[in-house]
Amino acid sequence: MTNPTQITAEAGRPFVDIVREFDAPIAAVFRAHTDPELFAQWTGPEQLSVDVKVFDAVTGGQWHYVSTDPAGGTYGFRGVFHTVEHEALIIQTFEFDGAPGQVSMSVARFEETPTGTRISTHTVFPSIESRDGMVATGMEHGATESYRRLEALLERDSVHSA
Amino acid sequence: MTNPTQITAEAGRPFVDIVREFDAPIAAVFRAHTDPELFAQWTGPEQLSVDVKVFDAVTGGQWHYVSTDPAGGTYGFRGVFHTVEHEALIIQTFEFDGAPGQVSMSVARFEETPTGTRISTHTVFPSIESRDGMVATGMEHGATESYRRLEALLERDSVHSA
Repeated sequence: MTNPTQITAEAGRPFVDIVREFDAPIAAVFRAHTDPELFAQWTGPEQLSVDVKVFDAVTGGQWHYVSTDPAGGTYGFRGVFHTVEHEALIIQTFEFDGAPGQVSMSVARFEETPTGTRISTHTVFPSIESRDGMVATGMEHGATESYRRLEALLERDSVHSA
Repeated sequence: MTNPTQITAEAGRPFVDIVREFDAPIAAVFRAHTDPELFAQWTGPEQLSVDVKVFDAVTGGQWHYVSTDPAGGTYGFRGVFHTVEHEALIIQTFEFDGAPGQVSMSVARFEETPTGTRISTHTVFPSIESRDGMVATGMEHGATESYRRLEALLERDSVHSA
């Protein structure tokens, strides 16, 4: 069973809100967001491989990864972690090297639920046009597919051992 | 003569735009934003003293300072530098410890003009309410006074020597 990914992108606002629940403990869900080896296994579409260059998931740390498509095309992403609160909160910036200077910032809150873990992510963009551009280029599909892959990863035993 | 500080905060949008020109070379204006000793001399209102704890003004660096008012009250501010491009661009996050979790992000562009330097800063807030709160608590006055103090600092010789 796959849980739904709820995505809200109200017209005329530079925000995207995404809510997703996982039938897995908060420790495992949070670890999949802060451990670079786990993160590389679920972020982005299935057909792209992810090479994590830097991933220092602590307050003040940096992150950088490069995705490669089957044709060899590469897509770089980087940012900084403003806040990482263990099993609670990740605030980070995000920049795609194909759109330099269009930096967004996301606030991801992790909460325990009766059946597992809820992640609520609020992303702010520097303009409504920038937000609309991200939505137009498949942010919804990307988020849904990433979370489907994360769900599958969380069903494997390895993620749950420290 | 004091140059005007142009502040735009359109209703219903989570943005604040500030444009300010200085009759000083871009090297000096930029240095006043990246050198912690200079930064402490102009940021914030005149009656508050600024103690810079961390100020690593490079891409991926952190910053943190504490302001103290005449009554001994303290106000902490911190964030990370997403991008620092020499004499061109500073993208950073900003959080006031009196409003934890209300993180904003600003994009400051530095440009040479016929008479000196223009700084254009676009700040995005996590909500319209958060933006309105910052405007209501004196962001306009704070920016105008900070830039007036920066202008005075730039008139002194010491800032212009490397």
